[in-house]
Amino acid sequence: MSEGTAFDRYLDARRREIDAALDEALPAPPACPPPIAEAMRYSVFAGGKRFRPILTLAAAEAAIPCGPDAAPPEDTGRMPALAGACAIELIHTYSLVHDDLPAMDDDTLRRGRPTSHVVFGEGVAILAGDALLTQAFTLLAGSPSHAPPGFEVRRLRAIARIAEAAGAAGMVGGQTLDLTAGAGADRGPVRAADDPEAALREVHERKTGALIRAAAAIGAILAGGGETAVRGVDAYAAHVGLAFQIVDDILDVEGSTAELGKTAGKDAVARKPTYPSMHGLDRSRALAADAVAAARDALASAGLGGRLGDIAEWVLSRTS
Amino acid sequence: MSEGTAFDRYLDARRREIDAALDEALPAPPACPPPIAEAMRYSVFAGGKRFRPILTLAAAEAAIPCGPDAAPPEDTGRMPALAGACAIELIHTYSLVHDDLPAMDDDTLRRGRPTSHVVFGEGVAILAGDALLTQAFTLLAGSPSHAPPGFEVRRLRAIARIAEAAGAAGMVGGQTLDLTAGAGADRGPVRAADDPEAALREVHERKTGALIRAAAAIGAILAGGGETAVRGVDAYAAHVGLAFQIVDDILDVEGSTAELGKTAGKDAVARKPTYPSMHGLDRSRALAADAVAAARDALASAGLGGRLGDIAEWVLSRTS
Repeated sequence: MSEGTAFDRYLDARRREIDAALDEALPAPPACPPPIAEAMRYSVFAGGKRFRPILTLAAAEAAIPCGPDAAPPEDTGRMPALAGACAIELIHTYSLVHDDLPAMDDDTLRRGRPTSHVVFGEGVAILAGDALLTQAFTLLAGSPSHAPPGFEVRRLRAIARIAEAAGAAGMVGGQTLDLTAGAGADRGPVRAADDPEAALREVHERKTGALIRAAAAIGAILAGGGETAVRGVDAYAAHVGLAFQIVDDILDVEGSTAELGKTAGKDAVARKPTYPSMHGLDRSRALAADAVAAARDALASAGLGGRLGDIAEWVLSRTS
Repeated sequence: MSEGTAFDRYLDARRREIDAALDEALPAPPACPPPIAEAMRYSVFAGGKRFRPILTLAAAEAAIPCGPDAAPPEDTGRMPALAGACAIELIHTYSLVHDDLPAMDDDTLRRGRPTSHVVFGEGVAILAGDALLTQAFTLLAGSPSHAPPGFEVRRLRAIARIAEAAGAAGMVGGQTLDLTAGAGADRGPVRAADDPEAALREVHERKTGALIRAAAAIGAILAGGGETAVRGVDAYAAHVGLAFQIVDDILDVEGSTAELGKTAGKDAVARKPTYPSMHGLDRSRALAADAVAAARDALASAGLGGRLGDIAEWVLSRTS
């Protein structure tokens, strides 16, 4: 453990804020049956890093308009951004629960604990994933009557952006490519035989990149950021998403199962194409560093500050 | 086949409208990978009755304000109601795809065709369900810039209502009760041992009732109906949902697999409590008729007309 830099304290504070909001956001009996509440809570509070929701909050902080056109204090977009951050984490969690199922990646360990279907059975794990995804939209729709005027449009934009990123064109599409490619098929719009690097990039952009970009973009949108800020945050997050995935691939090679909290070395066993398998470890590390530099450039071009730069460095240096 | 009453023609016209809108609403390559597009489309166009989306459109027609306070022609709520109707059908379809999985009801036949996991494999079937659920919210969020002012609030209300009805407190909660009760557990808020009829009602209200009610309510909401209309439609649909479920239970006993397009007699094999198993067939038929009468009363109290009364009768007389 580090002795605690200002950025570490920032991450801790945001995590506490997010965990408290998630705790409140999850349905509980008697509104819902106990088994589904239990399974949802188990996976949401399984020791996640909260990388994506922290990105949402940091993007909101960076994008809040300031100066003479600034919104009044009660309209800082902080509360809707927190709801958006939680929605992103619920969707991320649902994707892990479904991804771990026997019919998908068939994994029994996640964040150092048995996966949902190992604990609750496959049927309840499928339902818990479904409920987490649905609950994200309950959160995003919020209570319109309590929101200041103008928030409705931001909320609808955020819902559209998240649904696009999470659906067939985004995350679920990426999972589909991953799954059907593993079966020997090659059915993505980009054919791996023609351009293996482009095919690899496409899987990643959909599978992990789209939701990471949406996490940042909806922070800026919900905070009431202007188009320059939203576009800048989006460009930044596209590079951060790439760095995140390259580091994930490197950790799958270098990390131990204990350190990662999930089964290490899975990509090689599954013969999945990865950055290290395609470029080697050293070149992969350089590509990740390039992506983080590009992310910082995108912030500078849009005149965005705050913690977003630190978050990009965090992605590069993470070990789990 | 009937020779075609005015109501039959109404149903046919609404079905064509809904099918055309669904066709447009489903994602297609190159925006998404071909296998997920194919699996989504397979289940959406599998010969469904379109009962729920027709309910949405009929509720919208009944609830559109008229008289001196009526909205201008371009603001009739028809287009958003159609998007809402499609969203409801996508969610209904996703629930069938996941329900049929081996880990859930384990069914190989649906609407007379092999179920999704039989055709595409379990992994893609899980992902297709996920994508259908997500696409529903893409549709509901719409393109805010094209909607007349005031539509944002209606859309957010509709999203909140659908997410609540489909999630842990509604449909997914009902599936969970169904699944865990089958395993001998008795973990719903209402204990079957204490009050078997209340426990049966709870499963049904969550599993099928909540989405049927939401289908009708969002029609009224999206059409810009006042609170009396929305509440009237909601009360009507609660009774219709009960009638729908009782008739479903009766058809499972009386219908043939060929006629139903799904495996008949499953409830008895699974030893699930149903209306016929609890009350016998004759009393069940009387209870369904009572529910339809109560639905008509709710319409009359709220001063609502249109096709909603015919739809309630249709629920009672359906044979598949």
